[in-house]
Amino acid sequence: MIRVTVPATSANLGIGYDTLGMAVSLYAHFTFERADELAITGCPEEFRNEDNLVYVSFVDALRAWGEEPFPVAIDISTEVPVARGLGSSSTCVVAGIMAAAALTGHTVDRAELVRIATEVEGHPDNVAPAILGGAVCSFTPEGGLPRCLRYEVSDRLRFLTVIPPYEVHTSDARKVVPQQVPLSTAVWQMGRIAGMTRGLETGDARLIADACDDRLQEPYRRALIPDYDDIRRECLAGGAATMWISGSGSTLMAVTDDTIVAKFLQVRLQERFGACETLILTCDTEGAQIEYL
Amino acid sequence: MIRVTVPATSANLGIGYDTLGMAVSLYAHFTFERADELAITGCPEEFRNEDNLVYVSFVDALRAWGEEPFPVAIDISTEVPVARGLGSSSTCVVAGIMAAAALTGHTVDRAELVRIATEVEGHPDNVAPAILGGAVCSFTPEGGLPRCLRYEVSDRLRFLTVIPPYEVHTSDARKVVPQQVPLSTAVWQMGRIAGMTRGLETGDARLIADACDDRLQEPYRRALIPDYDDIRRECLAGGAATMWISGSGSTLMAVTDDTIVAKFLQVRLQERFGACETLILTCDTEGAQIEYL
Repeated sequence: MIRVTVPATSANLGIGYDTLGMAVSLYAHFTFERADELAITGCPEEFRNEDNLVYVSFVDALRAWGEEPFPVAIDISTEVPVARGLGSSSTCVVAGIMAAAALTGHTVDRAELVRIATEVEGHPDNVAPAILGGAVCSFTPEGGLPRCLRYEVSDRLRFLTVIPPYEVHTSDARKVVPQQVPLSTAVWQMGRIAGMTRGLETGDARLIADACDDRLQEPYRRALIPDYDDIRRECLAGGAATMWISGSGSTLMAVTDDTIVAKFLQVRLQERFGACETLILTCDTEGAQIEYL
Repeated sequence: MIRVTVPATSANLGIGYDTLGMAVSLYAHFTFERADELAITGCPEEFRNEDNLVYVSFVDALRAWGEEPFPVAIDISTEVPVARGLGSSSTCVVAGIMAAAALTGHTVDRAELVRIATEVEGHPDNVAPAILGGAVCSFTPEGGLPRCLRYEVSDRLRFLTVIPPYEVHTSDARKVVPQQVPLSTAVWQMGRIAGMTRGLETGDARLIADACDDRLQEPYRRALIPDYDDIRRECLAGGAATMWISGSGSTLMAVTDDTIVAKFLQVRLQERFGACETLILTCDTEGAQIEYL
């Protein structure tokens, strides 16, 4: 039996629409073993079939290596909420591919995993940090493979993560984003990518806040999250440096370099927004892991 | 007497329109001493008066510190061609400000120099790398001071610099750039900023080439430089990884991590484009310097 552990991820980090992502200390665990027929446990009944994304990715990877699909028993134990902008589907994709490699004796490195997972997911925003750990800025050269620039994230940073009880559909979130932007907005974003990555590396929360002033998506998407304004006000008043929408939401992530501020804020948000789950996360530095049990 | 030395700079670096810049190993030297009346030597007659940008910046800086302007003798000895996209005007601005500080006993650090020079120039693209050395990505928070992210550039990289005998007017170069861009172009540029800065740091010419695929300005500005296509073809055929327009041109800069390729290419370009000056430059790591003579 093998166990694969994959971190949750926060895409965009405010300023880096479809470009930046970061692995965080919230994990999905998956065990796999060969079985007589497909059996999936640890998830709602509706996902216990061959359309399960973990199994679909497992089969996709096998086929990519010219291997015949075979039945497995999969058990899922995840802390990553579904459809909240924390990369839960990427955890499934990465786990399925790693299991396919492990159970058929293929040796894959992380670069190869990113390549295959990007093909399955369509873009590297979440899968790249889920595999590599840290923060990742990615782009895909024309006709080439994705290029991933990995950044070590300072361990002084805390990401106060507020998960509302409701979902934002990614398709709705994409619809509200204007498809044409002023040249000055493109320039605005570019300089701030450098500020954000440097701020994450050095743990400079003030620089992160200066850089995290997005004009591409957050001004439009905030309206899709009813608690956005209230939670943002509370976070900034309580000492957080800034706050962004994680992926396309609904999760919100505030940043501080002070663990006391993080703790105070967590308690305050739990009191005021009891329907939301509020976690203090750090950056995951390891990325996806595999154990042979 | 004091002597100020300021490096030439290449703005944009292809992908980083109005955001990225790099100091290069080509220098302007300026000496200053108090005098009975303004005297400027080492430049064409038309610039030997109080409208000279060196003197204007000197006076601006004095006024910013509440000092009365006073006459100086300025001698200019520069390797930086005027109006070719190599930041010659920034060398003048930086020198004037540093001289004002030195001759009145003000102590300024490089951050303060960037702040004042950005006020004089209007944007930090050239002055920031001219002052700080290395490559610099900059942005200005709303209502705040410019933020400069400095990157050490690998000393393996060589920048083959081709300076045509003609000028591109910055105003013309700005006119041809579309003022609205697709969202996908903004995203395209953002990821490549990370690729360019990482490529410069690590000396990975292949990564620089992948990242240096600009969609904001270079597709439009190349038409303003008659030799662009021929020189680009020659550079890439001769082993350079990529080529960009320096600032708004007309200078072109090809990149290689191989000094032999740089030398071969220099000879080849000198043979084929004899009207152009062709230099092999490295990144300047020191930025502006001052000596008390």
